[in-house]
Amino acid sequence: MADPRFFRVSGPFTLAELASLTGAEILGDAGAGERIVTDVAPLDAAESHHLSFFANQHYLESFEKSRAGAVFVHPKLVKDAPAGMVLLVTPEPYLAFAKAARAFYPPSASYRGISPTAVIDGAAQLGDQVSVGHFTVIEAGVRIGARTEIGSNTVLEAGVVIGEGCVIGANVTISHSLIGDRVVIYPGARIGQDGFGFALDASRHLRIPQLGRVLVGDDVEIGANTTIDRGAGPDTIIGTGSVIDNLVQIGHNTVVGNGCVIVAQAGTAGSTKLGDFVMLGGQSGIAGHLTIAPGTKIAAKSGVMRDVPKATVMGGIPAVPMTQWLRQVATVARMAKKEVK
Amino acid sequence: MADPRFFRVSGPFTLAELASLTGAEILGDAGAGERIVTDVAPLDAAESHHLSFFANQHYLESFEKSRAGAVFVHPKLVKDAPAGMVLLVTPEPYLAFAKAARAFYPPSASYRGISPTAVIDGAAQLGDQVSVGHFTVIEAGVRIGARTEIGSNTVLEAGVVIGEGCVIGANVTISHSLIGDRVVIYPGARIGQDGFGFALDASRHLRIPQLGRVLVGDDVEIGANTTIDRGAGPDTIIGTGSVIDNLVQIGHNTVVGNGCVIVAQAGTAGSTKLGDFVMLGGQSGIAGHLTIAPGTKIAAKSGVMRDVPKATVMGGIPAVPMTQWLRQVATVARMAKKEVK
Amino acid sequence: MADPRFFRVSGPFTLAELASLTGAEILGDAGAGERIVTDVAPLDAAESHHLSFFANQHYLESFEKSRAGAVFVHPKLVKDAPAGMVLLVTPEPYLAFAKAARAFYPPSASYRGISPTAVIDGAAQLGDQVSVGHFTVIEAGVRIGARTEIGSNTVLEAGVVIGEGCVIGANVTISHSLIGDRVVIYPGARIGQDGFGFALDASRHLRIPQLGRVLVGDDVEIGANTTIDRGAGPDTIIGTGSVIDNLVQIGHNTVVGNGCVIVAQAGTAGSTKLGDFVMLGGQSGIAGHLTIAPGTKIAAKSGVMRDVPKATVMGGIPAVPMTQWLRQVATVARMAKKEVK
Repeated sequence: MADPRFFRVSGPFTLAELASLTGAEILGDAGAGERIVTDVAPLDAAESHHLSFFANQHYLESFEKSRAGAVFVHPKLVKDAPAGMVLLVTPEPYLAFAKAARAFYPPSASYRGISPTAVIDGAAQLGDQVSVGHFTVIEAGVRIGARTEIGSNTVLEAGVVIGEGCVIGANVTISHSLIGDRVVIYPGARIGQDGFGFALDASRHLRIPQLGRVLVGDDVEIGANTTIDRGAGPDTIIGTGSVIDNLVQIGHNTVVGNGCVIVAQAGTAGSTKLGDFVMLGGQSGIAGHLTIAPGTKIAAKSGVMRDVPKATVMGGIPAVPMTQWLRQVATVARMAKKEVK
Repeated sequence: MADPRFFRVSGPFTLAELASLTGAEILGDAGAGERIVTDVAPLDAAESHHLSFFANQHYLESFEKSRAGAVFVHPKLVKDAPAGMVLLVTPEPYLAFAKAARAFYPPSASYRGISPTAVIDGAAQLGDQVSVGHFTVIEAGVRIGARTEIGSNTVLEAGVVIGEGCVIGANVTISHSLIGDRVVIYPGARIGQDGFGFALDASRHLRIPQLGRVLVGDDVEIGANTTIDRGAGPDTIIGTGSVIDNLVQIGHNTVVGNGCVIVAQAGTAGSTKLGDFVMLGGQSGIAGHLTIAPGTKIAAKSGVMRDVPKATVMGGIPAVPMTQWLRQVATVARMAKKEVK
Repeated sequence: MADPRFFRVSGPFTLAELASLTGAEILGDAGAGERIVTDVAPLDAAESHHLSFFANQHYLESFEKSRAGAVFVHPKLVKDAPAGMVLLVTPEPYLAFAKAARAFYPPSASYRGISPTAVIDGAAQLGDQVSVGHFTVIEAGVRIGARTEIGSNTVLEAGVVIGEGCVIGANVTISHSLIGDRVVIYPGARIGQDGFGFALDASRHLRIPQLGRVLVGDDVEIGANTTIDRGAGPDTIIGTGSVIDNLVQIGHNTVVGNGCVIVAQAGTAGSTKLGDFVMLGGQSGIAGHLTIAPGTKIAAKSGVMRDVPKATVMGGIPAVPMTQWLRQVATVARMAKKEVK
């Protein structure tokens, strides 16, 4: 059960309600649909009034021994269930669990009102039920959509536009940006500062004015202490539904497609284009001015130095198709062993 | 044209004025020098009253089709210009464009005064026309030079000295540092905290007092969420004119020479010395206690584990001269292919 | 001598006092124990009233030429000492120096009181002599132990518990966390935000509620701009005495053992377990769901993709035992040379 100091559980729900919410089919004794569950929990911690899920054979033993009252499970794994457990059968038990967990713990912003300590420019426009934290600064021309929540000690510089139902964390800085609806920005993110653009003047690095913006689509997440520079002339763009982890660097003019996943400490240099549903593994990097095909997956720690013209799983530095990379790794290991002999 | 919500354009300027500013030669009909341009724009977005530049053959088609009124161009590329375009001929079109763009969008700090919400210690000294944002904390003994602008929610700890004409962003923390003139520090940078120094006492990591400072030269830029630790005894030093991107780590006692370029997510371990005009690619790392010759360039993602005694382009983990690294990469690729056959 | 604008020196101390504090043996003329030293300094900067240390043959020349009045030194190096220097002989001169430096510069928090500008919820509990900086926000249910110091512009979200004698820097954000005693958290750290957990719902990344916490043991250090996500269901745990550098990413459900050392820009993906005294080099990465044996050392920039079942020094991407990695590097270098011939 989640720590009540930090989480407030909703519900309880009947299994019938949860089956209806998730599209799962109830497998249990008559009346199983009327049973009530009060919370979600992992298989090995769950009690008889808890809901859990089993999606990975790796945890088979936990499933067999679980005391959970009800479990989302794939049709093929039903046979392994312990006696007495109500099964909620679905081809996508993890997704069903996610939906159920969201029913118990709705992720929506809470309305907290506007702190009297915030400094809000008279020429800023705030929608209905916007929350603003303590010591937050909202400069001239800022527009914030209804039900958006802004954390404490955050700075929204002049002209920034934020959509509806967003959650902007504490200690965030945003400038030169237009941000969509239902966007979540975690603490310490920096969005819209100058890109890293200089021309060499004799031995001096002369900053080139960075005249673009950051455009963030709907339903985007941006992780803690992540940095997204604004464009140099074109805009930096984060497509709808993309999710970005912590400590990521997005260089100026980067275009991130829709539905991309960018894992922690990855980075893109300037002017690179990621197609839709590209995945960048942790600590991976993409050089500048490249085009990465939709659906491409870049392994953790890889360095991409060329265009990826069609969806490929890539690995290594410089990155090559994953099968090649694995072969190279194996070859080098064998060669090194041979030399010793 | 830059979004007027975020940028205010200066000018307009005649081409004669811009030619004079940049040293370019006007090539056009009689009276071309009197023509007026109102803004800068990329080749493919520019209109007849805009100024652009063409420096890279890769964008030849954009140049040939551009409707820009005037374009900075290299003497060798003049022949490809479309009819009617006024050319501003210069051997360094990108630099000339940078200077022109700075005329349209002067990068200087704006004077905003001192927020009544800031907490400024009575023993701090602020020069003429210093700006201080909301909720910013300036502790005892801090000295700030004339025309410097400090963002909101920033903390300058006791004794910090900042020169003239600097721009310090929002949500920045600085302690134990002496900072030069015209330095730009982006949001979320952390400068002057303890270096990572411990002695092992039985099984306990005993922190060693970090008694040095961070010394930052004139005309330095420090990126968003970058961290620069103060020295352990000696100082951490960032030389004049060096530019540091986002999310960079500079370890204690590091000496960065003048005019260096350090790209995002790179890092230096402790006590390493970078000569003047060293370039560190994105996500590269330099081990501790090394000396890197002036003019050395480290490729993105490389890991330098030895001194670099003379200017070299280096790549790989561990880094070797670039030609060697490329050969190693090619060799491994070939070997892996052979094995398959 | 440390810059008095930033550091206040304690003492002076007699060498007898320092010998007693560190367990070193005094080697010098009669009455050497009564000599007074006023500060610590590096070998090459120290004067006759300063204390230094010599632990690394690399700096032999500095030792031979040093004018330091007293120096911690290993028994084997006593012979190289210049005439007139008092020697404090100990098998661990670096550790002894650390202890002496801590006597001159005690690292404890200073009591600064509670800023009248801080917003502290009426339902928060603060122990004796807690300091709270300007514009800091402490939400409902927060508990802070005695003598803990919280910096300015920091946000402690609802329910957070912090132990005694901690130092929390400026511009920090903490939520969903229980933190031990004597913990040091540097500026800009983000602790307790949601982990990066999504289920794919058709083409939409559906956030899964992250219902765990971050548990931080006693005597932990967490570096500037480091991010530690809370658990998804289980907790994220940082063991007692572990030290974490700047810009590190700790993914949800990670368990860091006791006494670990995690160097700057390293990262762990979700659900990985580091045993006690594991060391992660700078920019290294550990994939998810792995178990790393106690005492394992991961070289800088390495990528660990498999369990490490017993204490090993590991290097490379993917990481292999260090001896293998070095052999692989040498083999590839030789092969590449051969091909050229």
